Amino acid sequence: MYDIIIIGGGPAAVSAGVYAARKKMKSLLITDTFGGQSVVSDSIENWIGEEAISGFDLSQRLEKHLRAQDGIEINTGELVEKVLEDGGNFKIKTNKSEYCSKTILLTSGGRRRRLGVPGEEKFDGKGVAFCSTCDAPLFRGREVAVVGGGNSGLEAVVDLFPYATKITLLNNTDKLKGDPSTIEEVEKNEKVEIINNAKVKEVMGDTLVEGLVYEDEEGGEKKLDLQGVFVEIGSVPNSEMVNGLVELNKYKEIVVDHRTYETSKKGIFAAGDVTDEIYKQNNIAAGDAITALLSAYNYILNLDKKSPAHDTE
Amino acid sequence: MYDIIIIGGGPAAVSAGVYAARKKMKSLLITDTFGGQSVVSDSIENWIGEEAISGFDLSQRLEKHLRAQDGIEINTGELVEKVLEDGGNFKIKTNKSEYCSKTILLTSGGRRRRLGVPGEEKFDGKGVAFCSTCDAPLFRGREVAVVGGGNSGLEAVVDLFPYATKITLLNNTDKLKGDPSTIEEVEKNEKVEIINNAKVKEVMGDTLVEGLVYEDEEGGEKKLDLQGVFVEIGSVPNSEMVNGLVELNKYKEIVVDHRTYETSKKGIFAAGDVTDEIYKQNNIAAGDAITALLSAYNYILNLDKKSPAHDTE
Repeated sequence: MYDIIIIGGGPAAVSAGVYAARKKMKSLLITDTFGGQSVVSDSIENWIGEEAISGFDLSQRLEKHLRAQDGIEINTGELVEKVLEDGGNFKIKTNKSEYCSKTILLTSGGRRRRLGVPGEEKFDGKGVAFCSTCDAPLFRGREVAVVGGGNSGLEAVVDLFPYATKITLLNNTDKLKGDPSTIEEVEKNEKVEIINNAKVKEVMGDTLVEGLVYEDEEGGEKKLDLQGVFVEIGSVPNSEMVNGLVELNKYKEIVVDHRTYETSKKGIFAAGDVTDEIYKQNNIAAGDAITALLSAYNYILNLDKKSPAHDTE
Repeated sequence: MYDIIIIGGGPAAVSAGVYAARKKMKSLLITDTFGGQSVVSDSIENWIGEEAISGFDLSQRLEKHLRAQDGIEINTGELVEKVLEDGGNFKIKTNKSEYCSKTILLTSGGRRRRLGVPGEEKFDGKGVAFCSTCDAPLFRGREVAVVGGGNSGLEAVVDLFPYATKITLLNNTDKLKGDPSTIEEVEKNEKVEIINNAKVKEVMGDTLVEGLVYEDEEGGEKKLDLQGVFVEIGSVPNSEMVNGLVELNKYKEIVVDHRTYETSKKGIFAAGDVTDEIYKQNNIAAGDAITALLSAYNYILNLDKKSPAHDTE
């Protein structure tokens, strides 16, 4: 029986893990890999205290800090499939085993959102890409579209500046909605054409991407000839493992009390991009996860007070 | 007219400053010095991503990250005295000047709490100390008391291990309430005597501290002969500048909405140790301040939408 099982390997999970070990909680962290979603970033310039650090270097630094702590077990290469109630405690089923714990901290983050249009899946890796940092260099000398008018779309356009010959930014609203500085940078680059109120209908091609069809603001279908499509429309929370157990909102984000990071189920806490936190940022996730961990610590102290015969390990 | 004025120089203030600059807000940060309360720490082991870093090194790293941003003005050596409403905006009075801003972010932190007993002020710097990291080496070969049974008291005891010959820990409750690992470390050290339910009444001496009087659990007065008293009973929020303008709780902490970090006054935001955040931790303050900054950014976008003639700089 663990005091806490932390699910995830991004900044939130690591932050909670460091604090759990320092609090001498019997703890287990389960993750596939370390680093979270920003592990693919070439240069993160807003991880506080670092002028610039790659996502890979940050993930290594986080993992090193966590592994320097005594007394936290770390299982990597393991995927959590389901969290279940088990008496007053919880059972976790993974692709490898089962574990019991008094509390659970969900810091499982999110993953890239997909358009769900014909051709998107067929050409995945054959011209359709979801990670500009990873794949921009593959599109040297090509014409590409970036789908998404928020920060991830804008940043993908910037990533493509040195490689693509023409970049069409397709935005499904009437105005770009990212950081003004990035919008400015994108707007003034002569490689870029911005099309607002554009709804992507299909990705076309034979064995590789050859074009894209979108509906314009008047409802007419337009076709672009191009060799690459970057889908950059945000992320989906990794909350499936607790579906039905804790309250989720319409975006499938875990609803939390933002003062304590408790979920609707006592003993289950959540922090970071898997929650209904308004802003999805590494440092916000880290801070929230520390609050969640300290809340879980206090929750267990109270559990132990209520039942003196309880095994406190 | 600034978009935002950030008050403070700790991790919360710097985090907000970095994001304000990246959002291209017209921003000013006012602080006496950089680093916040933990600038005096010898070794911080829970700043996420760093196995160990001194408070001084962390403060330098934070300041460097902030100063690498374009377009944020930074005033150091300046103390904010009062925040006032001024039409729909705010006016800040400092010891040097006055400034106007559309929004204010209070990240002014806290300061050490005092006992308020006779002798405490008289012997300040003459045996009474408030910072074990700074002053422990001055008490080599001396007998000392540490007042405070929470983490700061316990950590002061640990700081004194290499120097003092005897350390009496005076705790005014029936049980120490810090981290179990630190409690264990303190309890097993033979230099340490722990006295619970002890209320300090007076610090005594002639030109230097010579003793301390406390009331024990039966109400009797006891005297300790010693040469040093470390007062480690937590901190007081630096919220005086907005007293009467925003809602404070009974501890004089600024009451915030923990989802957005808005205060009770529209346009004023607060984050970190100056607020009613349950846990006072560097990374929590940093994350909260980023949320507060992004909330202030969205608040201004909405202001501008409501009054199209408004000067958006």
